[in-house]
Amino acid sequence: MKKLPGITALLCFVTLTLFSSTQAQQPQQTSGRPAIDSKAASWIWYPGDFEIWLSNRVQNRRTDRGSFFPVFWKIDSHYPLIDFHKEFDLTAPEEIVIKTEGNYNVKVDGQPLEGTPTRITIPSGHHKINVKVFNQASVPAIYISGPNIKSDTSWLVTFEDKEWIDETGKTSDISATKWLNAGGWNFYDPSVPPSAFRLPVKPQYAVQVNKSQNATLLDFGKETFGFIKLHGVKGNGGVRLYYGESKEEALSEKNAITFDKLQLHTTIKRDSIMPLTKAFRYVNMITDGGITVDSVSMLYEYADVKEAGSFKCSDAEINKIYDISKYTFELNTREFFIDGIKRDRWIWSGDAYQSYLMNYYLYFDRGTVTRTTLALRGKDPVTSHMNTIMDYTFYWFLGIYDYYLYTGDKAFIAQFYPRMQTLMEYCLGRRNSEGLMEGMTGDWVFVDWADKLSKKGALSFEQLLLCRSLEVMALCADIANEKSDATRYQQYATDLRTRFFPLYWNEAKKALVHSRVDGKQTDNVTRYTNMFAIFFDYFNDVQKNAVKHSVLLNDSIQKITTPYMRFYELEALCALGEQSYVLKEMKDYWGGMLRLGATSFWEEYNPAKKGAEHYAMYGREFGKSLCHAWGASPIYLLGKYYLGVKPTSPGYKTYVIEPALGGLQWMEGKVPTGNGNIIIYCSTGEVKVTTADGLGTLKIASSKKPECKEASVVSKGGNLYEMTLQPFTTYNIKYKSLK
Amino acid sequence: MKKLPGITALLCFVTLTLFSSTQAQQPQQTSGRPAIDSKAASWIWYPGDFEIWLSNRVQNRRTDRGSFFPVFWKIDSHYPLIDFHKEFDLTAPEEIVIKTEGNYNVKVDGQPLEGTPTRITIPSGHHKINVKVFNQASVPAIYISGPNIKSDTSWLVTFEDKEWIDETGKTSDISATKWLNAGGWNFYDPSVPPSAFRLPVKPQYAVQVNKSQNATLLDFGKETFGFIKLHGVKGNGGVRLYYGESKEEALSEKNAITFDKLQLHTTIKRDSIMPLTKAFRYVNMITDGGITVDSVSMLYEYADVKEAGSFKCSDAEINKIYDISKYTFELNTREFFIDGIKRDRWIWSGDAYQSYLMNYYLYFDRGTVTRTTLALRGKDPVTSHMNTIMDYTFYWFLGIYDYYLYTGDKAFIAQFYPRMQTLMEYCLGRRNSEGLMEGMTGDWVFVDWADKLSKKGALSFEQLLLCRSLEVMALCADIANEKSDATRYQQYATDLRTRFFPLYWNEAKKALVHSRVDGKQTDNVTRYTNMFAIFFDYFNDVQKNAVKHSVLLNDSIQKITTPYMRFYELEALCALGEQSYVLKEMKDYWGGMLRLGATSFWEEYNPAKKGAEHYAMYGREFGKSLCHAWGASPIYLLGKYYLGVKPTSPGYKTYVIEPALGGLQWMEGKVPTGNGNIIIYCSTGEVKVTTADGLGTLKIASSKKPECKEASVVSKGGNLYEMTLQPFTTYNIKYKSLK
Repeated sequence: MKKLPGITALLCFVTLTLFSSTQAQQPQQTSGRPAIDSKAASWIWYPGDFEIWLSNRVQNRRTDRGSFFPVFWKIDSHYPLIDFHKEFDLTAPEEIVIKTEGNYNVKVDGQPLEGTPTRITIPSGHHKINVKVFNQASVPAIYISGPNIKSDTSWLVTFEDKEWIDETGKTSDISATKWLNAGGWNFYDPSVPPSAFRLPVKPQYAVQVNKSQNATLLDFGKETFGFIKLHGVKGNGGVRLYYGESKEEALSEKNAITFDKLQLHTTIKRDSIMPLTKAFRYVNMITDGGITVDSVSMLYEYADVKEAGSFKCSDAEINKIYDISKYTFELNTREFFIDGIKRDRWIWSGDAYQSYLMNYYLYFDRGTVTRTTLALRGKDPVTSHMNTIMDYTFYWFLGIYDYYLYTGDKAFIAQFYPRMQTLMEYCLGRRNSEGLMEGMTGDWVFVDWADKLSKKGALSFEQLLLCRSLEVMALCADIANEKSDATRYQQYATDLRTRFFPLYWNEAKKALVHSRVDGKQTDNVTRYTNMFAIFFDYFNDVQKNAVKHSVLLNDSIQKITTPYMRFYELEALCALGEQSYVLKEMKDYWGGMLRLGATSFWEEYNPAKKGAEHYAMYGREFGKSLCHAWGASPIYLLGKYYLGVKPTSPGYKTYVIEPALGGLQWMEGKVPTGNGNIIIYCSTGEVKVTTADGLGTLKIASSKKPECKEASVVSKGGNLYEMTLQPFTTYNIKYKSLK
Repeated sequence: MKKLPGITALLCFVTLTLFSSTQAQQPQQTSGRPAIDSKAASWIWYPGDFEIWLSNRVQNRRTDRGSFFPVFWKIDSHYPLIDFHKEFDLTAPEEIVIKTEGNYNVKVDGQPLEGTPTRITIPSGHHKINVKVFNQASVPAIYISGPNIKSDTSWLVTFEDKEWIDETGKTSDISATKWLNAGGWNFYDPSVPPSAFRLPVKPQYAVQVNKSQNATLLDFGKETFGFIKLHGVKGNGGVRLYYGESKEEALSEKNAITFDKLQLHTTIKRDSIMPLTKAFRYVNMITDGGITVDSVSMLYEYADVKEAGSFKCSDAEINKIYDISKYTFELNTREFFIDGIKRDRWIWSGDAYQSYLMNYYLYFDRGTVTRTTLALRGKDPVTSHMNTIMDYTFYWFLGIYDYYLYTGDKAFIAQFYPRMQTLMEYCLGRRNSEGLMEGMTGDWVFVDWADKLSKKGALSFEQLLLCRSLEVMALCADIANEKSDATRYQQYATDLRTRFFPLYWNEAKKALVHSRVDGKQTDNVTRYTNMFAIFFDYFNDVQKNAVKHSVLLNDSIQKITTPYMRFYELEALCALGEQSYVLKEMKDYWGGMLRLGATSFWEEYNPAKKGAEHYAMYGREFGKSLCHAWGASPIYLLGKYYLGVKPTSPGYKTYVIEPALGGLQWMEGKVPTGNGNIIIYCSTGEVKVTTADGLGTLKIASSKKPECKEASVVSKGGNLYEMTLQPFTTYNIKYKSLK
């Protein structure tokens, strides 16, 4: 790949009907960014600010029928004025290079230097460097590089330094100034500041092109995402591009969700790249009489994250499901984890929460998790639930718990605890007279897309999520060393958990009911609360087993038709040891989409529908997203519940491996841990494990005592056996699978 | 005046050492903006957002010895995504023009239109137009103009419309969406959007030029402000410009507070305008050998506000003091009311509060008051006191009270009450164990620049300001229809006022003491609290009279050396009827500056100092500002306490005129009321009044009963007489002055 020549110039002859050029998204073809290097200088900023700024750009690229379609909740801004500082001990004087985004000053040991110096020499000894940057348009950022002095996330930053000197020379009281560690990413190139960030692109070509008169239908062979590029355009007139995730959509000028319309005036042949990315498999290009186009290609835009996890097994259909899940997830993993690439292209907390979990079994990319978490949170004051949705606020807390569990990153939690705290206080301030979360004016109580799902009263689902969120708050307050907060949140959590079963458990139905209305239990039972209570481990064993039959495996309880909630339903069944059942469900549900020709997984799938009916949603012929992140959940299920790898303490310091074939003859795969990959092979008679860092426990069910030279096998009663696994070691185990 | 040709081009050959060109302030020569026209279309935005954005630009133009010198408190940003809407009833279809700053969509009756249309036709009948705009770099703004449909401040705006539709077509609950009236100014030109706003400029020339070798000293005759322009520059090399409010400063390359340094490379003669405004009377230009400059002029930058008030009297020195006060105030009245033009150029709440009051007697410009008020407040969350200073927070509340008293603008208060409320809650959350305001970590307790002024403990001054602020909150909560808040704040105010005298009054000293430390009264008495308590009318008559002698006229109490606190001291004395004494003080203090050659009034003046000592402050040879807004207080004192015009109910619905010659033979002048000007002439034997709108009361002290044909004169006992004044009427009164 090499840099495209003159992309900007190419665009200048195009009269765009949709976006002004300043709003356009300019493609950039690069060979991808280097991996994070903790010793290199990098661009840094106030933590969370670039994430918010970038998410504003990303989320405001949605169009619908040619119309800009922005989000409907508050979006925030970066702080326009930031002070950066760090102290250094130098054994010799050194010259440093200073670059910034914004107007700035530089102080050495508190003394301002004249002008805006780009190179200065710091004398040897102990010195403090401050750089204060003002920038309203984009995020104040600095890049400083010398032999020893380098800008990185160990620098401290504040948006209010409170440093003044009174008329007598007395310095101000800066004891209340809060300094955080700077935010950063992998921006090591001083010539590419944060505001210039673009995802990389690479060319792709249609696999089939059908021309008829002034229309050309291109098929790129599978769902894809990027900038359409017209080669050799000439003439005066219009070009219209209709994008389709399905052929039907591309061919529907009236109902395709996205299109581009151009007016061109050129007497010599030029290339033209569309200003905004689109999602499509098919593109229908219609030209006016006066226009000719030599050919059409695209620039595939992608996030440069690396696959670390893998899964392969004896069932070809499951392998296909895994591969299409991976591709679905790849397409939806961009600057942030977004919901779907065609329509919203937004960061939705409920959707992102599932992406985090998939990510831990595929990329283990911490940056995309923290960026998404920070973008979702935005800034104080909190004026509505996240994405306006009550449940989505709670998923945000749960996402932070999982991030901590999988990565052990206490620094992130300590740094952003205040934003957790203000959000939780917002929630606690919106409880009803029973102390329960109930939709207030302006709140969207979502749960799931499902027919006639009541949102009235205080839903058990929301209380369950609140209770879990309070437990997360107690944990995080403790990490942030806010001990009285920790005690308070733990007390709230304990109280709510104690009250929860008397409030919602219906002994006759052996289930948690859906809601309380006017202070009374309703008799409606839905799957949601019951399945979450299973993997939250809130039930006792009797309840858990009862619910499995009274709800999860009970066909009279309203079925789930979104991969979104199928995620949790199947997780709950896996947590109950129903891997065989879940494998069949996976083949039925995801396999069902594949049999309909899916090249990525969908926002919603109802097997009862026929043909192009599948593409409809929200009352629109092509309203449904055919590439939705929440469709990729097999990545998570297969990694966590078949390969069976789960951290049991933060950052995989301890973890468990409980392989479950679920009817497969064999399976093999890798699970990334942040400290190496755990490699597993498992058949009905053999388990091979190569560990990463941390202390593992292998749990196997076997009809005979497993044999292993590398570790001692401990019987845990019945058919259960355990082995302790040391870091970076390979184990070969012979056993006999129960089924 | 005409537009300068090619300013941008002129700048391009200049290598600036100080600012990047994107940060530079580009001068714009215009003939001033038209007056506000309520029927014209204008650019509109989310209220407060342009004010914050503009204040960020303005406050980040400070430089000190060539180094960018930004503020040290949090600055905020505009909301990047705003929905604007209004409903219209049209008798015929009409075409409207749409302009925006930012990417946008347009909906008519909830239906989005394709693309970003710039002209659309709205059918006849009842219709709703929504425009939603995204802009991170500058403030989202729209300009819409048709025969009847026009963007103005009657449009409604929100930063979170919460408008979504679920998969069944059900619309969202938007009942919690808060719509405010749009913000606007006088931006009627569709081709000049808010982000392009610049103050107008006009050329000015030096009155004296002294050249010697490579140095040229220019004297512009008086303090001024603007962009230096070099005419006919040629050659390769450097030009340095040292600015001085005094000749000594301009000639001090080492200590001049501001300078510009340029590197020029041009073989043909060009003009060059400096990128940032500066304050100066003198400019010392030093050129390197290779550079020649034909001449130097300046572009005077000014706010296009109109003088409405005036004052003239029998004392020539007082007339000079009034004129220099006006000029001082003109220079410091810019996009906002700033503190001083040379050094800070910032919006300081305590300084602005005084400017508001002066403004009511000179410009009566509401816009500069509300812009300054909004810029100071910024956005939630509140993370520190205003400008970090506790007293400055309270002045902000007081400023809103005065704004309401002088203008009667309830809409402004209702719209921004939530920002008052969160700021007051911040204060109430920072009281000590006695329930009193005491400096916490990070708080700057300022009061005044004065030697050894204790800031320890709970200062009576801060409690007094809190108490008054609570009274303002009660009033404003009531206006905003927040009745329970009104009750609560009134209760707090009443409680504090009841406690105040037992806490701080010292009967032996016949004065309020300065502070309480560790729960006990100190025995220190300062002027501040005592003089504020006079014009707040918190004393009983006995106390008031006692304090006049025990504090105000008592030379053993530490003297005030800043015009800032002289303002209040003289106001208190005027409120006690000491106009004759104050007149002498004015002639002594402000006259003292004039006798030292002042062409504008200073930040601080200590008659004991000599020569260039006067220019020093903050431990720096030229640290003092010689043009400080708070130096202009004679405007206020002469209008309010000599001409004697004061509103007695909001918006001058009722008002009083109590002329007080204070020893003058005669005086005449105008006081603007927002509903016309009140014109007054007063000599020892005659009073002439022409009224504006509202019901006035003329109060005269006379040794005989005044005679007036136009109104009946009512005796009020002693030598006091009153007349009721009707709107827009002229009265001629014969009387006999007591002194």
